[in-house]
Amino acid sequence: MAESYIDQADKEARKRALEVFRQRFREVLEQIRRGENPFLMLPKRTLSNTIYDERRKLLLLGPEKLKRSFFDLHEAKKFMQTLLMARIIFEALERDEYPTIRDLYYRGKHTIVYREPGGRRHEENTWDEQRESDAVIRDIEVLTGLLREEMLILSKEKGKVVGDMRIRSGGDVIDLSKMGHGAYAIEPTPDLIEFLDVNAEYVLVVEKDAVFQQLHRIKYWRQHKAILITSAGQPDRATRRFVRRLNEELGLPVYILTDADPYGWYIYSVFKIGSITLSYESERLATPQARFIGVSMTDIFGDPKSGKKPYLTEQERRNYIIKAKDADIKRAYELMNYLWFQTPKWKREIEIFLDKKAKLEIEALTSKGLRFLADKYLPEKIETGDWIE
Amino acid sequence: MAESYIDQADKEARKRALEVFRQRFREVLEQIRRGENPFLMLPKRTLSNTIYDERRKLLLLGPEKLKRSFFDLHEAKKFMQTLLMARIIFEALERDEYPTIRDLYYRGKHTIVYREPGGRRHEENTWDEQRESDAVIRDIEVLTGLLREEMLILSKEKGKVVGDMRIRSGGDVIDLSKMGHGAYAIEPTPDLIEFLDVNAEYVLVVEKDAVFQQLHRIKYWRQHKAILITSAGQPDRATRRFVRRLNEELGLPVYILTDADPYGWYIYSVFKIGSITLSYESERLATPQARFIGVSMTDIFGDPKSGKKPYLTEQERRNYIIKAKDADIKRAYELMNYLWFQTPKWKREIEIFLDKKAKLEIEALTSKGLRFLADKYLPEKIETGDWIE
Repeated sequence: MAESYIDQADKEARKRALEVFRQRFREVLEQIRRGENPFLMLPKRTLSNTIYDERRKLLLLGPEKLKRSFFDLHEAKKFMQTLLMARIIFEALERDEYPTIRDLYYRGKHTIVYREPGGRRHEENTWDEQRESDAVIRDIEVLTGLLREEMLILSKEKGKVVGDMRIRSGGDVIDLSKMGHGAYAIEPTPDLIEFLDVNAEYVLVVEKDAVFQQLHRIKYWRQHKAILITSAGQPDRATRRFVRRLNEELGLPVYILTDADPYGWYIYSVFKIGSITLSYESERLATPQARFIGVSMTDIFGDPKSGKKPYLTEQERRNYIIKAKDADIKRAYELMNYLWFQTPKWKREIEIFLDKKAKLEIEALTSKGLRFLADKYLPEKIETGDWIE
Repeated sequence: MAESYIDQADKEARKRALEVFRQRFREVLEQIRRGENPFLMLPKRTLSNTIYDERRKLLLLGPEKLKRSFFDLHEAKKFMQTLLMARIIFEALERDEYPTIRDLYYRGKHTIVYREPGGRRHEENTWDEQRESDAVIRDIEVLTGLLREEMLILSKEKGKVVGDMRIRSGGDVIDLSKMGHGAYAIEPTPDLIEFLDVNAEYVLVVEKDAVFQQLHRIKYWRQHKAILITSAGQPDRATRRFVRRLNEELGLPVYILTDADPYGWYIYSVFKIGSITLSYESERLATPQARFIGVSMTDIFGDPKSGKKPYLTEQERRNYIIKAKDADIKRAYELMNYLWFQTPKWKREIEIFLDKKAKLEIEALTSKGLRFLADKYLPEKIETGDWIE
């Protein structure tokens, strides 16, 4: 691989990550040199140590720590796995490699054979499944305070963006308003993107790729000065980080458009708060200011309590509404327990859903005419502040 | 929606499609005017009427036709569904709309109420599930000879591309060599893309997005003069059409890189021959010249018959190989029946697979070092012609 193909921003990212690794693991080396039992202290990634910070509106890891030491029957394997993975990542950083988490699993997977002093033979695998090695990568993320993206670990990405803005990535200047009918596929390391100039008033994130394609095709983003993004379902990390940066660094409000069902609410929740199992990352990936623009239950049924009129006629409701499944209802009850769904507006949403047992897809709105979605529904809701936070 | 946002290429595509619709359905109108029982003749989309054309190496619809008439108890509903869908698509074309197949399902879904002369009331839904309306869209595709993309029907798209080439789409000139670490997400109507200039010697299609990200990051495409594409799993129609056009119009050889398992072989098969249930589209979407570059069973195990040496050591095989599941083995037996898998090389692949009951992911190769995949494995196999057709 010729030197010239190595990107400068990547080089600097590697240097930063390598330095953190050296700092962090020097302690362990020194413990060994001093003849002590080497150990690592890391924040506990358990549900009980996951805390919703009301002020910052974020899921964060709490103060509980875990001590993982080498001479401890219960912890020795985990300790060695952590050091093995750290070594593999360190070497990849040094060698200008770009592993995926699947790679890291393969690279570390091997069998250790050893004999007891008495001669009995033992075999032990470093790890058997990717679930195990992924957990170790997460440990290294909390241990170093680096996201895996900052260690130049790549992954598949689904997010796409168009809009009137220019960015720099990998040495290229990319004009996101000149993508034709296609779009810009967001890179796996969105922290290395430089925002150059932006002519937009808000960010619209659409859950469904097909609806993104439709809005893009009629240049919704140009007419309404929006940065248009799709997560193509559950958002991946890069899309979340990219959206967060647009909100935080450029001060753009973020609106999320999903199907009207608990699955859509959960997508919104992941963008806004983070996922519960990966709360340590939400400090960097979540967008606490994100707003749920719809489709809301009150858009479908109206709301006698507030006097809001529905966007759908009785006839349209009959044709478009889908009956909720048991899994939807179960998920709605789960979401009710989340602190950030305990606002009056969200309680009302869930209440209507559980009452009507009905859900609706965004496509039902485009079926009323794409112009309805683009020229009436979205602009009207944004203008009148008809979103949920 | 301002007139200025409507793309010229789209306008012309609409004009072409509207003309075909007018031509095709004028007959039905004239039948009705003449007081006849109106009918449609369309090619049968059945397995028995799906033929593998050995010369062109394509799955095609055979000569069997189907007569669908209005005054026929068994056909009346299908006849009306076809005309309803044709009307909806026609109107969308006229109104500069961009429906998705999900939209079309919603737009046509309603209940028809009628009373028998005796007074008995009947209710009948136009269609209940998208499966039904999708089948009607396919009927209209074979009836008009237009792909749904040519009717400006949009859909979600996963395909991405980078490489040293310029294209024109929706009035923009896009340089696919200036995408930074991101990529160009292929548009849903790839026939409207204009190829401007190309500096490439072949097309490399990678099944897995994460491996695409890795090869892109080290600028494999620049060093090896390749157009690099990922289908992100099973290829969608747009990716298939885009690859076909690169092969047909630019004369670029196409290499497909998948996991070494029957699922990967099937992805290759869809690119090359088309899918069996949608054979009518393969004439436009399939790339009969596509080559399977790997990962092949002989790459993993070598081949004593031909003297080929394996790319993996005994130790690497032990660490990387995954045991085949029953579903893999079942699929391998299915693929054995496909005519295009009955060449000596493919028979050998399937034979080794069934003997070893082993599969391997592409990531196992990147775990040997990304440079191994990029600097040795791929270039060597392409140079020595070590692919399967």
